Amino acid sequence: MSAMDVSLHTLKINDPFLGQYQQLVRDVVIPYQWDALNDRITDAEPSHAIENFRIAAGLKEGEYYGMVFQDSDVAKWLEAVAWSLCQMPDPLLEKTADEVIELVAAAQCEDGYLNTYFTVKAPAERWTNLAECHELYCAGHMIEAGVAFFQATGKRRLLKVVCRLADHIDQVFGPAENQLHGYPGHPEIELALTRLFEVTQQPRYLTLASYFVEQRGTQPHFYDIEYEKRGKTSYWNTYGPAWMVRDKAYSQAHQPIAQQQTATGHAVRFVYLMAGVAHLARLSNDAQKRQHCLRLWNNMVQRQLYITGGIGAQSSGEAFTSDYDLPNDTVYAESCASIGLMMFARRMLEMEADSQYADVMERALYNTVLGGMALDGKHFFYVNPLEVHPRSLRFNHIYDHVKPVRQRWFGCACCPPNIARTLTSLGHYIYTPREEALYINLYVGNSVEIPVGDQALRLQISGHYPWQETIRITIDSPEPVTHTLALRLPDWCAEPQVMLNGDEPPKTIRKGYLHITRRWQQGDTIQLTLPMPVRRIYGNPLLRHVAGKVAIQRGPLVYCLEQADNGDALHNLWLPRNAAFTTIDGKGVLAHQTVIQAEGIRQTAHQPQTQALWQYDQPPGERQTQTLTFIPWFSWANRGEGEMRVWVNEE
Amino acid sequence: MSAMDVSLHTLKINDPFLGQYQQLVRDVVIPYQWDALNDRITDAEPSHAIENFRIAAGLKEGEYYGMVFQDSDVAKWLEAVAWSLCQMPDPLLEKTADEVIELVAAAQCEDGYLNTYFTVKAPAERWTNLAECHELYCAGHMIEAGVAFFQATGKRRLLKVVCRLADHIDQVFGPAENQLHGYPGHPEIELALTRLFEVTQQPRYLTLASYFVEQRGTQPHFYDIEYEKRGKTSYWNTYGPAWMVRDKAYSQAHQPIAQQQTATGHAVRFVYLMAGVAHLARLSNDAQKRQHCLRLWNNMVQRQLYITGGIGAQSSGEAFTSDYDLPNDTVYAESCASIGLMMFARRMLEMEADSQYADVMERALYNTVLGGMALDGKHFFYVNPLEVHPRSLRFNHIYDHVKPVRQRWFGCACCPPNIARTLTSLGHYIYTPREEALYINLYVGNSVEIPVGDQALRLQISGHYPWQETIRITIDSPEPVTHTLALRLPDWCAEPQVMLNGDEPPKTIRKGYLHITRRWQQGDTIQLTLPMPVRRIYGNPLLRHVAGKVAIQRGPLVYCLEQADNGDALHNLWLPRNAAFTTIDGKGVLAHQTVIQAEGIRQTAHQPQTQALWQYDQPPGERQTQTLTFIPWFSWANRGEGEMRVWVNEE
Repeated sequence: MSAMDVSLHTLKINDPFLGQYQQLVRDVVIPYQWDALNDRITDAEPSHAIENFRIAAGLKEGEYYGMVFQDSDVAKWLEAVAWSLCQMPDPLLEKTADEVIELVAAAQCEDGYLNTYFTVKAPAERWTNLAECHELYCAGHMIEAGVAFFQATGKRRLLKVVCRLADHIDQVFGPAENQLHGYPGHPEIELALTRLFEVTQQPRYLTLASYFVEQRGTQPHFYDIEYEKRGKTSYWNTYGPAWMVRDKAYSQAHQPIAQQQTATGHAVRFVYLMAGVAHLARLSNDAQKRQHCLRLWNNMVQRQLYITGGIGAQSSGEAFTSDYDLPNDTVYAESCASIGLMMFARRMLEMEADSQYADVMERALYNTVLGGMALDGKHFFYVNPLEVHPRSLRFNHIYDHVKPVRQRWFGCACCPPNIARTLTSLGHYIYTPREEALYINLYVGNSVEIPVGDQALRLQISGHYPWQETIRITIDSPEPVTHTLALRLPDWCAEPQVMLNGDEPPKTIRKGYLHITRRWQQGDTIQLTLPMPVRRIYGNPLLRHVAGKVAIQRGPLVYCLEQADNGDALHNLWLPRNAAFTTIDGKGVLAHQTVIQAEGIRQTAHQPQTQALWQYDQPPGERQTQTLTFIPWFSWANRGEGEMRVWVNEE
Repeated sequence: MSAMDVSLHTLKINDPFLGQYQQLVRDVVIPYQWDALNDRITDAEPSHAIENFRIAAGLKEGEYYGMVFQDSDVAKWLEAVAWSLCQMPDPLLEKTADEVIELVAAAQCEDGYLNTYFTVKAPAERWTNLAECHELYCAGHMIEAGVAFFQATGKRRLLKVVCRLADHIDQVFGPAENQLHGYPGHPEIELALTRLFEVTQQPRYLTLASYFVEQRGTQPHFYDIEYEKRGKTSYWNTYGPAWMVRDKAYSQAHQPIAQQQTATGHAVRFVYLMAGVAHLARLSNDAQKRQHCLRLWNNMVQRQLYITGGIGAQSSGEAFTSDYDLPNDTVYAESCASIGLMMFARRMLEMEADSQYADVMERALYNTVLGGMALDGKHFFYVNPLEVHPRSLRFNHIYDHVKPVRQRWFGCACCPPNIARTLTSLGHYIYTPREEALYINLYVGNSVEIPVGDQALRLQISGHYPWQETIRITIDSPEPVTHTLALRLPDWCAEPQVMLNGDEPPKTIRKGYLHITRRWQQGDTIQLTLPMPVRRIYGNPLLRHVAGKVAIQRGPLVYCLEQADNGDALHNLWLPRNAAFTTIDGKGVLAHQTVIQAEGIRQTAHQPQTQALWQYDQPPGERQTQTLTFIPWFSWANRGEGEMRVWVNEE
């Protein structure tokens, strides 16, 4: 166990950019989602999630409504509230959360079981359909909420509830003859149990998590066994009866993890599972599990990752496809998948301080995760395409899953509360404290106190990341502390510069981190300059969807063309290889954002709709110069419906 | 009625190229499909189509098996046999067909009704589900077979059967109170009845066809009425219960044809319907129906047509999408849709001798229709993509409908027999005989005798089309005949040259046809030279899928790159704007075909699979020159599985 958790109590985010997002979550998202969970948003699909708990608790009569995993929305909301309270006390919100926790406690069964779907609707069917019915997934999210609430507020009420739930699960599942030898269709319990272990230090939770991981994909297959046992009933029939049972790769259960070679199946399940495996590998010092993590991480980031930090190239099964198959328009790239990717990356970092993990984590955060929420905090993307042509979305059913603008809420509302809990718990991703060094992964403005032996290293990070290139790290400890600070040098930065109190420190770089060891004194200041020239990105020659195209990145942000700035028919725009870029300040909803311009070319034609579909010998029309305006991709679709594309023709 | 049918008795095709296809249909396809209809192909899905007729005729016990429109496969096979017998007598085949016709006659009910699905499986449900159940579609195909068999052999047995069937339908459907006010979900009966009228001259068949056309899409909607009446049962649930009833645009029944502005819905249905409407418009001299045909034709060919003569851009509903949305890889472009397009184009030509219709007809024939069948005559494409990346097909479900190589037979076997009947009846497409001129649409080698008043104009067309540029038209009439020959000047040919007996005739060109009027004498010879330089095709600027790309055409043939000649990763190949083309003779299965080469460029990298997914500043790898080899697109996938693309990067 070489990495430690940062206590979010001592960490205050004051970042001009992400701080605003946190404030948005506090002021808008959490109240809005509370209304949604209580069915008070008139123009959104009903949630019924709180009502389900009331019915399960016997406080109300009624029928269960919603997805089989509706409980998890409440759990994620509670987790978001917990981390938010940590950042900014709010007695009224805490009181509401306490009441929800009491409601959750009241809905728990005598034996510790907790799931409103089964309690209300199908009590006899508990634990009979792990492949399809998300019982362990919901349990995992509630456990995460219990851990978070305890860590954030010191209150043990929900922690006790989830310990009882975990103990119940520990009785039901395991290798003994009278136990079920199963594991979830949707992973989540694995990482939740490891977090619960970290808080409680009860080894049985770690053992149980290991059991779930190691049992996965073994033969005879548990999904088949339980399917036979329950008389071949099936909950989902999206792709035919019992498809989740049949398509075991969808749940990464087609073979033991030790044998899996590629990132496969439902993308969210994959990264949730692997976050749990990585966490377990570290806590149990398991070199084999670590190898599985490395192998599958490498396949994912070297062959199946979008430059926006998105994963899951197809809508069918919200899933990975195959190596180097990364379409920009039919992509899925669920917001939750990139959140899970951050979780997986963070655990890989905790195993080994290698900046490649932080690079991916940052890319996912600043692009897909931020892009998943509108700048107003009230609209969300489930699917995050890199290219959209709105008119075609309406008629061509390969785009049925793609929305040209963010939606208010979803019947399957996994993404909005997941974004909220991620943004409020950002502090967990900024640092990786280890014995040998404090690794700084993200340059988010904050102040923090990190224990170093018996002492405390207090420091502040400030700057205007990701817009401006200078980051200042100031030591604020009243007593000198000897320790190593390890500063991540981002992959997108060709020439980082560091000054320590005005001088150049020795450049000791290990795995992408610049190490500075010193007896740190109050007022010591590191100035890290990460030059942010606009950079062109080119795809690997095996990526057929971006051949001949170029994308634009500045700092960690991927940029895009939008119709609002560039007119329609974005496919007719070309960016010359040698075009110079200028940066300007965004306006309107893009205020405080850096916008990029370059002289480009438009292949245009006079009234093309009066011309034939094709012509011989010469391209129709003419070439005109046009200023191309690129905006940060995470900001797209905040100005109404229009075309968008990340990858632009190059000449 | 200004256009006349060509009697296929007097027309003998001896074309070196398409004649081989006709021979293939005779020698391989018809016998193969006969085996398929009788379930004697071991590695193909069973058909059961003949067996269904036996059961319906009471000759066998058993249950109906197959699609609700399985009968139509037998009808199309009979039609293919009829036209084939016309070209080449075959007493044994004729005897088999006569036996099938007796079987069909035996399966007909007392009242004239004929459909084995309903007779065997659901006799009480006759005519209760026109929207979904293909009764009138199957009837239409059998009527076409009856007409064809009569025209081809003079035998009236099947004609009488289908007249009884048509008379039965005429009793059931119509405006009277005791009649059904319906029309088919899948058009076909309309064009079949007009053909039946042409043979029988019974006006009631024309009236009935008009009724079906004019009733279509009116309110209250017949599909809703019958749906309510039968207790809301539904036959198909591919996209949800009763989706065919709900999605009326799928069947072009969302509004009256007079109000429809765009080619919409299932592509095959659309062109079958419009072929019927165009045929009717001509026979009934209906200017309004002609306008509907023109308007919808124009939308289709000016905004929704692939350069391969394919239509239907999406798999969902095998349907059109929207203007200018023509993806190359997820396209549907069903073989049957291009056959229907030929049928529609032929009827437009019969209304008005404008070469634009023949240009589209030729494009569909020489590219998608020929490409629908393997060079061995035993394998078929249902879907005809312009770009295929086989590895991605296996994992990305947006490609579930795309096959990288042709299949042996289909559970829904509409395409193979449809290709067979089209290839055997090619003669119908070569000429449009009108009073004022004999229009020559296609330069397929043949000899024919055309009535001109009381005389007969006999002529021959010879050449090596589509490979060689010289076509010879020789007059073979023993007596001189004064008439006009109108030679189509193809849209793909920039500088056609014509010589008449060694001299240049006056160039009287009207709507794409060169008219030569003369007292034709035996031995008169027209030499038409259609230079076939390799030509580049460029898309309309509104076609986003081909921006920056170029396609290659020579004569009527669209070409493509295949992995077999060019290696994999075809997306990394560039064709320079100024590259010169050379033509060479194909080898192996491509023998006797013209293959095109040009010096191109490959963007390549050393071991790209060991490199990152993207890199900054410079494209990875280097540029190497590579000879690009283009083969006729209709020949693709005859050398095993591999990548293919029609639209190639240009620089």
